[in-house]
Formats: sequence, structure tokens, C-alpha cells
Amino acid sequence: MQGMPDSLERLVTELARLPGIGRRTAQRLAVHIVRADSQQSIQLARALDAARERIVRCGRCFGFSETPICGICSDQRRDASLLCVVEEPTDVLLVERIAGFHGRYHVLGGALSPLEGVDPEDLTLAQLTNRIEAEGVLEVVVATNPTMSGEATASYIADMLRGRCRVTRPASGLPVGSDMEQADELTIGRAFSGRRDLA
Amino acid sequence: MQGMPDSLERLVTELARLPGIGRRTAQRLAVHIVRADSQQSIQLARALDAARERIVRCGRCFGFSETPICGICSDQRRDASLLCVVEEPTDVLLVERIAGFHGRYHVLGGALSPLEGVDPEDLTLAQLTNRIEAEGVLEVVVATNPTMSGEATASYIADMLRGRCRVTRPASGLPVGSDMEQADELTIGRAFSGRRDLA
Repeated sequence: MQGMPDSLERLVTELARLPGIGRRTAQRLAVHIVRADSQQSIQLARALDAARERIVRCGRCFGFSETPICGICSDQRRDASLLCVVEEPTDVLLVERIAGFHGRYHVLGGALSPLEGVDPEDLTLAQLTNRIEAEGVLEVVVATNPTMSGEATASYIADMLRGRCRVTRPASGLPVGSDMEQADELTIGRAFSGRRDLA
Repeated sequence: MQGMPDSLERLVTELARLPGIGRRTAQRLAVHIVRADSQQSIQLARALDAARERIVRCGRCFGFSETPICGICSDQRRDASLLCVVEEPTDVLLVERIAGFHGRYHVLGGALSPLEGVDPEDLTLAQLTNRIEAEGVLEVVVATNPTMSGEATASYIADMLRGRCRVTRPASGLPVGSDMEQADELTIGRAFSGRRDLA
């Protein structure tokens, strides 16, 4: 583009490759970066390099880590008998932020989806099985997404671990603060079948 | 945050300092960067460095440039007698993309706003005056924003250059493809006072 220096154009292109960042947003960000006090953009560039170089997968739970075994897996205060199974490393961050969960995690690396070519051997299911006995796990909370593939994965894990430990799944139901009129039938159905006694 | 490695947390913090990027988006971007093939994040980091190091202000028009005088100012095919005055370097990119303008630019570096402490000497108005004679400018198109401060700046420039060259302003009016019912009264007023003959 005439008027757009090459290095700015290249930064816009790279930023626009990020998910959810369109060309207009990328241009706004690039211009901000170029105009910001240079300290800020130096820090961003350094943070990018550091994250890229340092983040690895934990050898035990396969979550994000900067060390061979992550902080959660090596934290002796956490309950080793309770294991939360999630699809992605980001789900660990989510559960940590919200749920007040004090066990450990196991990241599958996705969910079973034969149509998309994701078979059991593509996930960390063998490693999960090994952990049950090695770590004395008593309960596995399968927190895969409430989607078709997430549900299929949960069923597969329930079958796989049956008789070896307790396998549970977080409740599906109406979101807190939501209006029932706006919920889909499947969610309402789940909410009713999972109803709790109040009195 | 427990579960979030330091370097990832730092990247999220730096990304969240960008305009319009909240913490959730920053986290999504950071995770993408960490998981993307490393080539992509290396390119992003390099583009950041290159843009930060190379982008300077053009010594003539004050737009973005990688050279002391920018590509537009040094392009002999552009009409030196026609000068478009804008508030910010990004406005140059906008006019270049849209308007089919073949003159040159002058970036003011803002708009007059006594309340916010932006006085004439804070803008590149003296440099603008010098360019009129030095470059043989015959018409100045004042494309400051149609806001209170942009209009004030346009009036100031019109007074400043009166008798030295023609000073024009792009038309204000109803946006193409818009519904008149949704326009504000000021815009409709402008559209009517700026009406053109059709027959």
C-alpha cells in the first residue's frame, strides 16, 4: 500500500494472522505499537520471545509449563487422588480461575472425533491410565466440553477406567443468571434430568 | 495465577496493554502464539522489532516513513501543488486507501483543542505555512475530522492561509448507503447546505 512503510505493513500482516484479529484491528494495533513509548513495544517483543522459548508441555499432565514438570503437578499440597481431565491446556487455566479445584490435571490434547481423524491414540489416554495407579488417583473428573466430541470422549474414558477409580462429570444445566426462555431444549433437558433436591 | 506459567502471564499482560485488547482476548492470543508453529511467532516478534526500529516521521510531511523523507513526498509523479492536511499519520493511510488522491500530505499531529491544552504551536502549522511557498502549493484540502476540534483547526488553517492559496474541505453529509432516519440533525443540516445540482 502506498503510504504504508514496508515494516509497518509487515507488522500488520503478522498481527492479522492472529485468531480473531482482522486487518483493521491489526492496523490499529500496529500503529499503536509504533507510536507507543518504545519501552512498551520492547517489553511486548521480549514477552513474545520469552513465552515462545520457555513454554513447554508438562511431562506429566501435558499442560503449559516452564519446567519439565509443572507447578501444579509438583505442588505437594494438591490432592493427588483427584484428577481433572480436560481437552486443552487453556482449560486448566479456566478451571484454576473459577472452580476452586484442589486436585491435579490431565490434558488430553483434544477430544475424540472419528470424522476429523482424532482417534484414542491421538490423545494422552494411555498416559492417563498409567497415572491412575502410579499416583493413587481415586476420582477422575472428566471436564471435557459439553459438545458431541467432548461427551464421546467422556464416555470413552468412563469405559476405560471403569472399576479402577470413580469417574465423574461436571453438571450440565442452565447457566447461572440466565433466562430459561433463552436456553436450548437440550440444556433444559439436562437441567431437569440433573435436578437436585432443595427440600 | 496458579497454572499459568510466568512467561505466559507476562505475555498476556503485555498484550492486554494494547488498545481494545481485553484480558480474555490477550489470553487467547498468547495461547495461540505459544502453540502456533514457532515460525509464525518468530515472524511476529521480528516484525515488531523491525517496525519499532525502522519507523520514523517523514521530515517533510510528518507521516510514517522508513526514510528521512517518505515515499509519497519523494514521489515526483505526485501533484506537488495539491496538499492534503490531516490530523494523524494513520489518516494518510486512510486517504491513500480510499480517495484516489494524487497530491501530497501534511500531518498536523492532532487538532486544536484549547481545553486539552493543544495550541497552534503544538501542531506542525509553521511547517505547513513554509511548505506552501517552498513547494508551490496551490490548494490545501483540510481533511481534519468533522469534530469540534477538527472544524476549529480547519477554520484556523483557512484564516492562516487566506490569500496565499486555495483552502478546501471535504464535504460533510449523509453517509453513502445510510438511512436518513438514522442521521443526526447536524449531519442532515450539513447535507442540505452542501446540496449539489443534479439537473
